[in-house]
Amino acid sequence: MKTRLLNKLSPAQLIIVYYVVSVTISTILLNLPVSLKPGVEWEFIDILFMAVSAVSVTGLSVVDVGQTFSTTGLFLLMFVLQFGGIGIMSLGTFFWLILGRKIGLKERQLIMTDQNQTKLSGLVKLLIQIVQIILFIEIAGAIILGLYFLNYFPDWKEAFLHGLFLSVSATTNAGFDISGSSMIPYAKDYFIQIITIILITLGAIGFPVLIEVKEYFSRNHYPYKYRFSLFTKITSFTFGALIVVGTVLIFLLERNGFFTDKTWTETFFYSLFISSNTRSGGLTTMDVNQFSEPTTLLLSFLMFIGASPSSVGGGIRTTTFAIMFLFVINFATGNRAIKVFKREICEEDIYKAVAVMTMGLTMCFLSIFIMTITESLTISEIIFEVCSAFGSVGLSLGITAKLSFTGKIVVMILMFIGRVGIISFLFIIGRQEKTGHYQYPKEKIIIG
Amino acid sequence: MKTRLLNKLSPAQLIIVYYVVSVTISTILLNLPVSLKPGVEWEFIDILFMAVSAVSVTGLSVVDVGQTFSTTGLFLLMFVLQFGGIGIMSLGTFFWLILGRKIGLKERQLIMTDQNQTKLSGLVKLLIQIVQIILFIEIAGAIILGLYFLNYFPDWKEAFLHGLFLSVSATTNAGFDISGSSMIPYAKDYFIQIITIILITLGAIGFPVLIEVKEYFSRNHYPYKYRFSLFTKITSFTFGALIVVGTVLIFLLERNGFFTDKTWTETFFYSLFISSNTRSGGLTTMDVNQFSEPTTLLLSFLMFIGASPSSVGGGIRTTTFAIMFLFVINFATGNRAIKVFKREICEEDIYKAVAVMTMGLTMCFLSIFIMTITESLTISEIIFEVCSAFGSVGLSLGITAKLSFTGKIVVMILMFIGRVGIISFLFIIGRQEKTGHYQYPKEKIIIG
Ligand SMILES: [K+]
Ligand SMILES: [K+]
Repeated sequence: MKTRLLNKLSPAQLIIVYYVVSVTISTILLNLPVSLKPGVEWEFIDILFMAVSAVSVTGLSVVDVGQTFSTTGLFLLMFVLQFGGIGIMSLGTFFWLILGRKIGLKERQLIMTDQNQTKLSGLVKLLIQIVQIILFIEIAGAIILGLYFLNYFPDWKEAFLHGLFLSVSATTNAGFDISGSSMIPYAKDYFIQIITIILITLGAIGFPVLIEVKEYFSRNHYPYKYRFSLFTKITSFTFGALIVVGTVLIFLLERNGFFTDKTWTETFFYSLFISSNTRSGGLTTMDVNQFSEPTTLLLSFLMFIGASPSSVGGGIRTTTFAIMFLFVINFATGNRAIKVFKREICEEDIYKAVAVMTMGLTMCFLSIFIMTITESLTISEIIFEVCSAFGSVGLSLGITAKLSFTGKIVVMILMFIGRVGIISFLFIIGRQEKTGHYQYPKEKIIIG
Repeated sequence: MKTRLLNKLSPAQLIIVYYVVSVTISTILLNLPVSLKPGVEWEFIDILFMAVSAVSVTGLSVVDVGQTFSTTGLFLLMFVLQFGGIGIMSLGTFFWLILGRKIGLKERQLIMTDQNQTKLSGLVKLLIQIVQIILFIEIAGAIILGLYFLNYFPDWKEAFLHGLFLSVSATTNAGFDISGSSMIPYAKDYFIQIITIILITLGAIGFPVLIEVKEYFSRNHYPYKYRFSLFTKITSFTFGALIVVGTVLIFLLERNGFFTDKTWTETFFYSLFISSNTRSGGLTTMDVNQFSEPTTLLLSFLMFIGASPSSVGGGIRTTTFAIMFLFVINFATGNRAIKVFKREICEEDIYKAVAVMTMGLTMCFLSIFIMTITESLTISEIIFEVCSAFGSVGLSLGITAKLSFTGKIVVMILMFIGRVGIISFLFIIGRQEKTGHYQYPKEKIIIG
């Protein structure tokens, strides 16, 4: 009976059912008396906001997490983050592979090879691998950070609670903090920052990449050269390039601003940490309000792009940005076909990228527009919050708690769609490949 | 010799040569002692800005036109507007038809039929028609407005100077004014407003549309039903829809704001007039600063879209917006082919629209980003100015004269590219259709 219902659902519908169920359970869990510190009371919209933010691992919060939740509450929150982070990543990967089946034997074999799945029955094995790998990363991170936090907290229980929470929050890219001020207390502790950046990157780089890297190391005794898939190459390169370009630009923009009185090392780590966290992490070692307006605009743009597909992140995704970038360059130089890493991009993927970018922009523009009407905030603050929510990032200029009812609803919708991904979202709202029953002649028109 | 040089130039290069020559001549003409009122002195960057603004018929101005130019200067300015308005429109149309030749006999015949040009030799005839039609519209407008202005100015010379200048400024969609405050003196004069809207629309609706409408009326004695081209249908429908939607939204946004103390008639005409002028006109019957932030954002968006291709306007153009809109709707409902008005849109045109939109957005975003660094203005003001320049509109929140040197350069580049059009601009910077010398296998990746 249950299986029948699940079989009736399309993969995309499965994601939304999963999402709604997760939010419902999270709302209940996070509102249990045992989850909250004594005396904490909150309104339903704020509980719901917290649940949506947790399931979509965005990390925007209308309350102070450390002051609101008991230790039990924090463990339940970490549990919810697993659901949001690993769960939706698994479903996304699954979904993509399912769709892969529809595209003909030859291409399917290509994908399967590239995903290093020689049999379709390997799918379930793959899903188990996802859970294993992420849990392994989280535990490793928790141990390293927990041991290190003994420098900060004399009580080992507290040290390991902080270590575990930061490890889970970083790996799932949730970006929640129990310090009450993100990573600001560790602004000068570069060891914690480096570990955090590594955990965040492992979560946001995309699951297929992790699998391939694992394969690469386990297969390096093979006689033939291991070939990474085009997806892995594009997404990893874009991911790295965005972090590097972001770091450099933040430095250039703030060298006479926030960085005036900072040393080179401080400047480098501030720039690198915030740049790495615009992919999806959402943690910060400084108050973003101290940056100038051009820098917050830059960060908004970076957050809008977001992380890799099939990861714990959101936004239009690195691949969409890369394809659109290559498309424009190629169009301007007169090439129709997009060639990159000795492969050609499929037309279908270009169409998808265009749809994702256009819908993402439309959605963010509409949200900004609505919020200039409903909120008493500056446009920069609104742009930043909208891009942060859509990119599942969770950085904020500190306005989340000030949002009106409408503002909270808008941000929740953005967190949901940004996290689920626009392609999945389109399938959810009923996209089906239709075969044309009639044909019209083509006619050229004048463009731009 | 001269013909040989011209033959060597591609149509797009021809446009840029024409543009540069026009700006150079305009700079000289507008700076002649006889053009200026006694005592007027200005810096070179401001003269250049005025020339670029005039040739690209944008109408942004760092000086008060009425206070700067003598009557001779005003006539020279009107002369320049013809060059900018009619000249680039003619070259654009010409360019499109030239390109049409390359696309195979069948399609060429289709275009020629749709453009109602049965022979290629009809091209020159077409160009002459453009000049004739626009001059006819301008003179008709000047006579009507000149006669009507006798109500305002007792001196018939002054009345007809005002009538002629407004007619030329409206038809070429330049949007310059000699009143010193745009159309604000005529805020309650609905006759002038209606005439102005008609003139602006005739200039901005696109030349192919005018030709087809003319053909329609001259051929209505034919036995067969006249078929308007797909281009005419799409661009006219989008043009009208944008004005209607704009009017309604401005009303809704300002009903408790700027329109609180206004009558229904006043409200209607204020909304309609400013909405019509966001296509390209750039005239206004009120100080745009009196609108709230959401309204100026909406106007920015409308200006970014701009007017029809092959018109006196700029922006990404109505057709680009229409194609992108239809693309997303079709993608979301699972249709690959875009069918509209019983025709199918060519893939090549979809690619063009994507490139134009993406490059237009990138260019405007970069400009806004640069100007947040160089200007001491709010982001809303900058967004408004950037969209206005890119869309060749010329509305402003009054900051044009306050722009820094860099800001003026950025706005000039936007006016140029926005007016010439991104497709032409791409051809200018060296786009050539390349035949692939090598082929790579296609490989699917994960998008969004
Ligand atoms: K996050
Ligand atoms: K204009």
